[in-house]
Amino acid sequence: MKFVIQKDKLVQSVQDVMKAVSSRTTIPILTGIKITAGEDGVTMTGSDSDISIESFIPSEEDGRVNVETQISGSIVLQARFFSEIVRKLPMDTVELEVGHHFMTVIRSGKAEFNLNGLDAEEYPHLPQIEENNKFQIPNDLLKTMIRQTVFAVSTSETRPILTGVNWKIENGELVCIATDSHRLALRKAPLETAVEGTHNVVIPGKSLSELSKILDDSNDSIDIVMTENQVLFKAKNVLFYSRLLDGSYPDTARLIPNESKTEIVVHTKEFLQAIDRASLLAKEGRNNVVKLSTVDNSYVEISSNTPEIGKVIEEVQTQSVIGEELKISFSAKYMMDALKALEGTEIGISFTGAMRPFLIRTPGDDTILQLILPVRTY
Amino acid sequence: MKFVIQKDKLVQSVQDVMKAVSSRTTIPILTGIKITAGEDGVTMTGSDSDISIESFIPSEEDGRVNVETQISGSIVLQARFFSEIVRKLPMDTVELEVGHHFMTVIRSGKAEFNLNGLDAEEYPHLPQIEENNKFQIPNDLLKTMIRQTVFAVSTSETRPILTGVNWKIENGELVCIATDSHRLALRKAPLETAVEGTHNVVIPGKSLSELSKILDDSNDSIDIVMTENQVLFKAKNVLFYSRLLDGSYPDTARLIPNESKTEIVVHTKEFLQAIDRASLLAKEGRNNVVKLSTVDNSYVEISSNTPEIGKVIEEVQTQSVIGEELKISFSAKYMMDALKALEGTEIGISFTGAMRPFLIRTPGDDTILQLILPVRTY
Repeated sequence: MKFVIQKDKLVQSVQDVMKAVSSRTTIPILTGIKITAGEDGVTMTGSDSDISIESFIPSEEDGRVNVETQISGSIVLQARFFSEIVRKLPMDTVELEVGHHFMTVIRSGKAEFNLNGLDAEEYPHLPQIEENNKFQIPNDLLKTMIRQTVFAVSTSETRPILTGVNWKIENGELVCIATDSHRLALRKAPLETAVEGTHNVVIPGKSLSELSKILDDSNDSIDIVMTENQVLFKAKNVLFYSRLLDGSYPDTARLIPNESKTEIVVHTKEFLQAIDRASLLAKEGRNNVVKLSTVDNSYVEISSNTPEIGKVIEEVQTQSVIGEELKISFSAKYMMDALKALEGTEIGISFTGAMRPFLIRTPGDDTILQLILPVRTY
Repeated sequence: MKFVIQKDKLVQSVQDVMKAVSSRTTIPILTGIKITAGEDGVTMTGSDSDISIESFIPSEEDGRVNVETQISGSIVLQARFFSEIVRKLPMDTVELEVGHHFMTVIRSGKAEFNLNGLDAEEYPHLPQIEENNKFQIPNDLLKTMIRQTVFAVSTSETRPILTGVNWKIENGELVCIATDSHRLALRKAPLETAVEGTHNVVIPGKSLSELSKILDDSNDSIDIVMTENQVLFKAKNVLFYSRLLDGSYPDTARLIPNESKTEIVVHTKEFLQAIDRASLLAKEGRNNVVKLSTVDNSYVEISSNTPEIGKVIEEVQTQSVIGEELKISFSAKYMMDALKALEGTEIGISFTGAMRPFLIRTPGDDTILQLILPVRTY
């Protein structure tokens, strides 16, 4: 194998596939990046066997020559060294040549690296995915949907299925749900293209976080293909494969209350900052618990109290308070996560008593919903 | 105690004194910040008993009112909580009031914090320093001199004296020297004001690093007062005290070679980048060792070799190579530290054989010098 490549393209591509490479793998060759050069261009592959990323650099693009392949072929190079080397090369072009015993020479200007390569034949094959069943979604919408749900997945392996985000496609709509059993985030969006049948899969939270880092913020569409145990995201020149989690996701619909006894509407930023301040003195306690009380149907009081350190109390103006008086305690962290995920300058919170889960929503927007379970403090 | 203060001034002052507060202290009250309000203004104090910082906020400054003191007094508040609270307060002004049992109320807008305070009488007194013997140095020069030497102090407590920087004042000149016994950094500068007698002290590297973070980049002068066991830096509204290290600093003058056998001059940035690249494959080996060889008195070759991973070799153009041919090995990290400390686009390196310490200097500038001991690899 021998080719000359533009450094900026190589660096970007290596950075993308590195998102899938783990230094802690039981399969040694997966600490490497597979590089394949052909007439059309160069393909990089990284994988930790859960996530696999393939990045393609076309020989020519927009009239610019990216790659000149002199000899086609493949090699696997240690990802950690290769990625550091390419970032620090001195010139704008890089020559890569594989010699005997997989010894690979990387040249740029007067710098010459010799890296011990590995046989690309040993590198695992990527999943074969039939593209019968694909749908499209704009990059920016996908990133938003991931951001608004993935923070709520469980970080504990007690119930592995909860470490993923449940994606359901039915009636031309994509619904994403994440819960760690203390709070839940739901976001849905109509799909622009018709999808045959229904899908109900669970995608690891980590896969979605990594995918999000690779996607640009354009409204270009990405193709999504689902199979029984894999999902494939096809962006321009990048393929992102993730395995799906086994098992069935809990039915979350019954968790979401249909009625409410107290409804408040507050200014999102003011409310978030008050919760943040109250949490300062709640950190020592159990899970940053703060207390919310409605007062005279005209404002809410946010407070917390850690006797060893001190206490804090703050009034937050409400746009409206409707229904029963309420005193409720909850995790400040969960509330702040939920508020940051929501868009809009105002948010509405619907309570059904101090012991029942409550809902946080943007008024007039039924595509997103955050649910938090209160903490018993009385 | 009761006063109203501008939040921005309070935040800046707390941030400065926090540099001296350690959470790991054997004296519990030192986890707090001492606050004293008087008619002139408010003073904050933080200390870990090695470093003490006092920041003063004058009641009026440049025609602006910073503080209105209603009742004079003192209190000590938990530094970690107090600093987080003041940063997150909602309004531009803050009211602070001490009530019974040192309970302190912090009010800003509709937020009200109650913090358990401690008796300020229990807070240790700062060192009493007589200002007989002081000298001045511009802030920006002091920061530069710290930056160019402090990185070379020892991080090991085997020889505690080497964790400090040796400051010597003689013949109207300040000389700063740091060495960890593998490399040495020296920077000197003439003093603008006459100083009586000579000084030879060792200031903890950590103190100088923290001081550097507090100083602005202006060329305002800072007053420096030295006593037998303390040094005091007096900037505008900030006093910075540091204890000195006990013991006598080794005589480093004899380490610095007077003659050389090979002299090279290279472009600083190109040379630094070549060393950086060579170090990529040297990390696994012992202490990032790279090799430098002069070739035909026309260029140098930088290389490293770690058989398990690969090797790298690079030619670096020289402005000049004078003297004997040379092959020498050294720590890439020490070389990069030294190059980053030097100013100027070109640097000169003077070697006295492969086994002797060598000097790195900016040609034509004798105020700064970096010395590195080579590594035996042959």
